[in-house]
Amino acid sequence: MATFDPTEHQHIRYNPLKAEWVLVSPHRAKRPWKGQVEKLPEDNIPRKDSNNPLCPGSTRSNGEVNPEYEGTFVFKNDFEALLQDGPPPEKSDDPLFQAAPAYGTCKVMCFHPWSDMTLPIMQDKEVRAVVDKWAEINQELGQKFLWVQLFENRGAMMGCSNPHPHCQIWASSFLPNELAVKDRTQKEFYDKYKKPMLVDYTEKELSKKERVVIESKHWVWLVPYWAVWPYETMLLPKRHVLRLEDLNNEERDDLCVIMKKLLSKYDNMFEISFPYSMGWHGAPTGERLKANNDHWQLHALYYPPLLRSATVKKFMVGYEMLAQCQRDLTAEQAAEKLCNLSDVHYKTKS
Amino acid sequence: MATFDPTEHQHIRYNPLKAEWVLVSPHRAKRPWKGQVEKLPEDNIPRKDSNNPLCPGSTRSNGEVNPEYEGTFVFKNDFEALLQDGPPPEKSDDPLFQAAPAYGTCKVMCFHPWSDMTLPIMQDKEVRAVVDKWAEINQELGQKFLWVQLFENRGAMMGCSNPHPHCQIWASSFLPNELAVKDRTQKEFYDKYKKPMLVDYTEKELSKKERVVIESKHWVWLVPYWAVWPYETMLLPKRHVLRLEDLNNEERDDLCVIMKKLLSKYDNMFEISFPYSMGWHGAPTGERLKANNDHWQLHALYYPPLLRSATVKKFMVGYEMLAQCQRDLTAEQAAEKLCNLSDVHYKTKS
Ligand SMILES: O=P(O)(O)O[C@H]1O[C@H](CO)[C@@H](O)[C@H](O)[C@H]1O
Ligand SMILES: O=P(O)(O)O[C@H]1O[C@H](CO)[C@@H](O)[C@H](O)[C@H]1O
Repeated sequence: MATFDPTEHQHIRYNPLKAEWVLVSPHRAKRPWKGQVEKLPEDNIPRKDSNNPLCPGSTRSNGEVNPEYEGTFVFKNDFEALLQDGPPPEKSDDPLFQAAPAYGTCKVMCFHPWSDMTLPIMQDKEVRAVVDKWAEINQELGQKFLWVQLFENRGAMMGCSNPHPHCQIWASSFLPNELAVKDRTQKEFYDKYKKPMLVDYTEKELSKKERVVIESKHWVWLVPYWAVWPYETMLLPKRHVLRLEDLNNEERDDLCVIMKKLLSKYDNMFEISFPYSMGWHGAPTGERLKANNDHWQLHALYYPPLLRSATVKKFMVGYEMLAQCQRDLTAEQAAEKLCNLSDVHYKTKS
Repeated sequence: MATFDPTEHQHIRYNPLKAEWVLVSPHRAKRPWKGQVEKLPEDNIPRKDSNNPLCPGSTRSNGEVNPEYEGTFVFKNDFEALLQDGPPPEKSDDPLFQAAPAYGTCKVMCFHPWSDMTLPIMQDKEVRAVVDKWAEINQELGQKFLWVQLFENRGAMMGCSNPHPHCQIWASSFLPNELAVKDRTQKEFYDKYKKPMLVDYTEKELSKKERVVIESKHWVWLVPYWAVWPYETMLLPKRHVLRLEDLNNEERDDLCVIMKKLLSKYDNMFEISFPYSMGWHGAPTGERLKANNDHWQLHALYYPPLLRSATVKKFMVGYEMLAQCQRDLTAEQAAEKLCNLSDVHYKTKS
């Protein structure tokens, strides 16, 4: 029998953070695609549009007028999925009909006053303002809420309803599913190996060098061994850091540089503004602020849906929804492809 | 403070099968939508197209010629995500880099010789042939494989690359994530309450009547209390049944009738062929065929993506991917909407 080659032979890989497996079927990449083709992302977005509720000076749906902001701008989401109060659901003894209270708040954060701007083509100091604001909001909402989820949906393909560069922050009184699992798996690992899982993982990836795309002085950008999306990646600090607000000045500057490079590589892949959902995960906050969270390590996750071209995405449907995620190209192949792309954005090349 | 009203006040609900919560924010349904609008599903699909590899008499990409089939037709997927053999990955001692062998097979099953046919407009006896074939394949592949996943991706929006009515069967040597979790949660419930979780759940839903959409002699179609997709539903037998092949003659006939009604209601909602992923979950097979699987109950799941209209779907992105699923309308509101729709397909109404 042939010897095992991960780029040729099917296997499953384990994600120790989520306690889940992914099916890797590299032989399937040859499959032709006759299914749905997406629209190309819009490419001539007006810089300023008074009908766009995220622009400086615009009137939003609740009647509020945005200031003529020049850097970042944060406001309460006009359609919050989580409100600060409301009556709690009744308690039930039946294990099959369990409801629980949920409180929180949702904010929107604009990155820049111009709608045609994106993080990779912003200036370093403008990106630094975004990073500082992220840290500030995480700290501020973390005083009150157990979890602060900072995330960006980029591109219409990812359900983003406004092209203006922005992210969202949803803070909640409960630990959402993904984090409840990651809290448990990291704790179990820490108790067993006396080391934070993701600190150990980062060191190992740095020595293996098979999935690292960019290494900077303070950060590592890599394709995780257990990635499910074709070009899914993770961004991790080299130092053990619990939360965004704990990053020092030098780490923040370095983060801006590596983030611009990684987003440029993404955009360069198909010469479009690469769609994705991204978000930050760090130690829980609120009532957990003063607890021991040493098993946690700050990291950002990027989940881009595209597979073959600017218009053909990977569908996580049928088998994936009902059974288990499946991917065609391996994590190592994705890392290699990302490594080979220029880290200078195609729009800024002269 | 106001008393709790699930259609007004945010809360979280627990899914005991997946051991996960969903965030319900009914107040958010008023949010306007300015994001991506989907293409309408194709409506004049040619009945017979010799270029379509699923049609009778067509030549497929591997050179094989389909028979002139008149009922169902099953063949091996030309691009299998799971193959029957291959070398296994090397064993690793590192908990962060775990790979394991995966074997299996993937089949495609056409429901009908005509490409413009769909299950709700097929004749009862034609649907019965589909149900019998499902049972037969599950039994056949279940002799060898631990898990047989039968699923249908319907519509281009759900990654379906061919409009011809068909489903897929992926059988594997491993228990996929979703099923590993459901096997555990159902077992824990059974050990504690001495009753299969979904048998108990079905009885309770039948007495509450808040989320039941159709009840027939042998089946119940309902919106689960913990649904995440806007019109997510579950189809369950009233009797304790482990697997598709255990359904008796009368239950199979009744299944055809209720399935046609439920799919007609779906299609009638926006007068289009309603996109969805659906699949069957029953007791594990292969090495588990002879084990005690009394904690299991057969059920089908329907996950349709549409939210507001034929072209606006719910995006499970950002917050959902990184934290927890969120829904706007409640399960009870979805059930009511489905109840009020006719169960006679709009295309067959005279
Ligand atoms: O096999 P198909 O229909 O070509 O492919 C579709 O269904 C599969 C199983 O759900 C998914 O893995 C693919 O991403 C999807 O496009
Ligand atoms: O808040 P938005 O951008 O309007 O909405 C988008 O992101 C939310 C959070 O990921 C999702 O719940 C919505 O389905 C999606 O359309």
